[in-house]
Amino acid sequence: MTGIDLNSDMGESFGRWTLGDDTALLGVVSSANVACGFHAGDPAGMLRTVGYAAAHGVTVGAHVAYRDLAGFGRRYVDETPEDLAADVIYQIGALEGIAAAAGTQVKYVKPHGALYNRIAIDERHAAAVVEAIKAVDPSLALLTLPGSVVGRLAEDAGLRVFREAFADRAYTPDGHLVSRREPGAVITDPEQVTARVLRMVEDGTVTAIDGSIVRLHADSVCVHGDSPGAVAMATAVRKALEHAGIAVRSFAACDGSSPSVSTEAAKS
Amino acid sequence: MTGIDLNSDMGESFGRWTLGDDTALLGVVSSANVACGFHAGDPAGMLRTVGYAAAHGVTVGAHVAYRDLAGFGRRYVDETPEDLAADVIYQIGALEGIAAAAGTQVKYVKPHGALYNRIAIDERHAAAVVEAIKAVDPSLALLTLPGSVVGRLAEDAGLRVFREAFADRAYTPDGHLVSRREPGAVITDPEQVTARVLRMVEDGTVTAIDGSIVRLHADSVCVHGDSPGAVAMATAVRKALEHAGIAVRSFAACDGSSPSVSTEAAKS
Amino acid sequence: MTGIDLNSDMGESFGRWTLGDDTALLGVVSSANVACGFHAGDPAGMLRTVGYAAAHGVTVGAHVAYRDLAGFGRRYVDETPEDLAADVIYQIGALEGIAAAAGTQVKYVKPHGALYNRIAIDERHAAAVVEAIKAVDPSLALLTLPGSVVGRLAEDAGLRVFREAFADRAYTPDGHLVSRREPGAVITDPEQVTARVLRMVEDGTVTAIDGSIVRLHADSVCVHGDSPGAVAMATAVRKALEHAGIAVRSFAACDGSSPSVSTEAAKS
Amino acid sequence: MTGIDLNSDMGESFGRWTLGDDTALLGVVSSANVACGFHAGDPAGMLRTVGYAAAHGVTVGAHVAYRDLAGFGRRYVDETPEDLAADVIYQIGALEGIAAAAGTQVKYVKPHGALYNRIAIDERHAAAVVEAIKAVDPSLALLTLPGSVVGRLAEDAGLRVFREAFADRAYTPDGHLVSRREPGAVITDPEQVTARVLRMVEDGTVTAIDGSIVRLHADSVCVHGDSPGAVAMATAVRKALEHAGIAVRSFAACDGSSPSVSTEAAKS
Repeated sequence: MTGIDLNSDMGESFGRWTLGDDTALLGVVSSANVACGFHAGDPAGMLRTVGYAAAHGVTVGAHVAYRDLAGFGRRYVDETPEDLAADVIYQIGALEGIAAAAGTQVKYVKPHGALYNRIAIDERHAAAVVEAIKAVDPSLALLTLPGSVVGRLAEDAGLRVFREAFADRAYTPDGHLVSRREPGAVITDPEQVTARVLRMVEDGTVTAIDGSIVRLHADSVCVHGDSPGAVAMATAVRKALEHAGIAVRSFAACDGSSPSVSTEAAKS
Repeated sequence: MTGIDLNSDMGESFGRWTLGDDTALLGVVSSANVACGFHAGDPAGMLRTVGYAAAHGVTVGAHVAYRDLAGFGRRYVDETPEDLAADVIYQIGALEGIAAAAGTQVKYVKPHGALYNRIAIDERHAAAVVEAIKAVDPSLALLTLPGSVVGRLAEDAGLRVFREAFADRAYTPDGHLVSRREPGAVITDPEQVTARVLRMVEDGTVTAIDGSIVRLHADSVCVHGDSPGAVAMATAVRKALEHAGIAVRSFAACDGSSPSVSTEAAKS
Repeated sequence: MTGIDLNSDMGESFGRWTLGDDTALLGVVSSANVACGFHAGDPAGMLRTVGYAAAHGVTVGAHVAYRDLAGFGRRYVDETPEDLAADVIYQIGALEGIAAAAGTQVKYVKPHGALYNRIAIDERHAAAVVEAIKAVDPSLALLTLPGSVVGRLAEDAGLRVFREAFADRAYTPDGHLVSRREPGAVITDPEQVTARVLRMVEDGTVTAIDGSIVRLHADSVCVHGDSPGAVAMATAVRKALEHAGIAVRSFAACDGSSPSVSTEAAKS
Repeated sequence: MTGIDLNSDMGESFGRWTLGDDTALLGVVSSANVACGFHAGDPAGMLRTVGYAAAHGVTVGAHVAYRDLAGFGRRYVDETPEDLAADVIYQIGALEGIAAAAGTQVKYVKPHGALYNRIAIDERHAAAVVEAIKAVDPSLALLTLPGSVVGRLAEDAGLRVFREAFADRAYTPDGHLVSRREPGAVITDPEQVTARVLRMVEDGTVTAIDGSIVRLHADSVCVHGDSPGAVAMATAVRKALEHAGIAVRSFAACDGSSPSVSTEAAKS
């Protein structure tokens, strides 16, 4: 039976402030990217989310970030590679402690926000993240964009690497995400989103913003849970997949890195 | 051969700010209480200190604290037990990640500052700390005061518990520490300090501030490294111990909890 | 024309996390207690809220707190009086800077959360807060509970003091708030709440939880905006007041301290 | 009588961590750049430093920074201009509150670390800082590098602008600082440093790293206090100036912006 992973960001509340509906999303996704305290996530909230994830059989990943609570990890911080590597190790370890207390384990790392974007293109910070993962636990997988610098470096370092696509984001003809600043970057129609996800999984393609067809290898599809309607959208995606006979299941048990196909344009 | 553990607080720098001389102290002590980021300790500094500790064969402990960087963990914070337990789990996990990256392991937990003092007497916070240690890794030992509430609860929960004495602090006739606010609370003469430590280890007693002799079971002796002269004092203590044929070695390999004798007055 | 002040907590978002509906509430209240960054409130959000307040003619107060973002200022922190006074000065100054940039001024101080409760009974922290207000700007008023220690010390120090009642909270027969942990502590029926507020303002009394009538001097009534229905409740209170011919207006222009009547039981 | 300002960074301790010798430096300099809590500086420490400054008649400036305690403000943070402007307003206001409590006033703003360097070249962040200063108090002066973008924008906005030179830093032939990463960037010989400062003040020139003579307009000379020997160096500079009949005095009373001469090469 064909399968695909669905992942979503979670544990992004902090103290008095709540964000997202983790309990609802954990009934939908197979992988939870859990905030580790640097961009969001207080320990008690992380523990609750990871506990729910364990109860739902959802795989836990470390959503590591620059140290920037005020900016939610969405601002590039010009850290030294040494500081960044240690920050990533610290965050992974903290979530591993939380996971141990919840009777589960961290299986992968997905960098968050500005760090996610930066290490897609910046060798220095990408190498620091790879070094950190390898140092703390080389059995951890990395979840990243197709074609990212960090993905290549992680594979070179012997880490398992998985690639993700975005359910509700438009793509350029060469397989990159359309910037959020541009019109049409985010797709909000649930039917269109579910149709796109089915095509990503069944055909390995997506229709780019100019109408061309782009090849897109995805081991996981990212759905959101932090806005009204997001959980409903994620639920619709899951139902459409199951209806098409595609199991929603974690990539964590998979081999991963070897057959991963980089994104490449396949214009129709 | 008789032996005793020497422990000291470390990794208490933060970013630009340095505190203590960890590299010097790691040549003296057998156990390093490493700050975990909540009262002090940035990840890169923690990694350096734990790396040095591993290189020196010094046992690493988690120096967990209330979340209070501005107060250096010296201010009581009225957390809920749920929040406190999660904060402790998070800190232990973070240091375990750092330790893994440095090729070593965390072996014990020593609460810091206001938390250390609070859980000596407060059942609610003491129980939260015990629960946290047990949840994240029940093989971790606890280092605490003789006669503390947390020590009793930890033993009841099946954790290994070790007690410490303080090399340079005066004791009351009933075996408690003289408050730092009172005159004579801290002993600054190196000869007097080394003589007291020898007596603690060889006889299991200490001369209280009123001249009486107090029984004091100590699995470890705490020395300081954060002030001028502190490293020299710690070095003098170690030399005196070795000269007396007492090995300085970690308690981590020991059994611990069962024969631990509570402090009790033995007035002469 | 009779008048009363309505106050509410605002500016309690932080970065990515939003809390409360400040723009709606600013159409209802006459005084805005604006978070100053220690329990909530990032500078850009504070600036927006204070700007809206200025545009609506709402008086701005400094909602100062213990330094505890993770606990939202709801946890007692055992600060030294010196540290607490400086923390309060810093927060007031920060909000004054924000207010200057928004073309308005800070007129009063209302301590938040655990600090609010603590200085109602603790001389040491109460004195530190009074000293801080006096040092930074003695023309700032203090908004506090009737019968609080900080109110008495502030009056002794020559500050203007205003007392507040709570629209939706039950009172004990001796005029204190019923603890939130007890049943019936929070009144959720809008009609009951508006009737109580009218009685507070018109008669200076409130029906206590045991049915007795308690005298309650209030210069301001606190309404909430951080939960669903809260803004609707606040709006209902305002409408009821206006319908009864009572103007909703800031206490800031008033004299304040001299005629303030302490709460006292007046059992029926 | 000719005069020059000497400025130095202060108030950079935080909680338990001390940095620099503010009390000694305040006997040497005429302007104190006081940390405002975002890269360093806790309120109680800021209050002590500003109190000493007031007692010594030293002018107080706001040493504003990116929000980055762990990086000491030395890491670029990619803030939106809106966030940055609000952060700067908040910090200035906070220090103004501290200054009011200490019986003095903030007279100027000197951005710190990565922000200082960034706004020398980046229009977007420079404009945000200028907007912030103007919004909170347009009588505040700006202390910056000669030739900086922020200096130009601040003058265009009608702010008073003063330029500073560095006592112990080498200059390029076109009047910029030699990067700290290059050899010879920092001059450590006290006699050479004092000779250079005299020449800056008396001739308006400095010998560049290649031996050429560069024109350098300086309203203030920056000396350091955060390392061993730094206070001695600053004291030597002051003595040399006084011996040469040059008064050490704040630029705050001066007019400032109009006659400021940009750095330009004047090769010998």
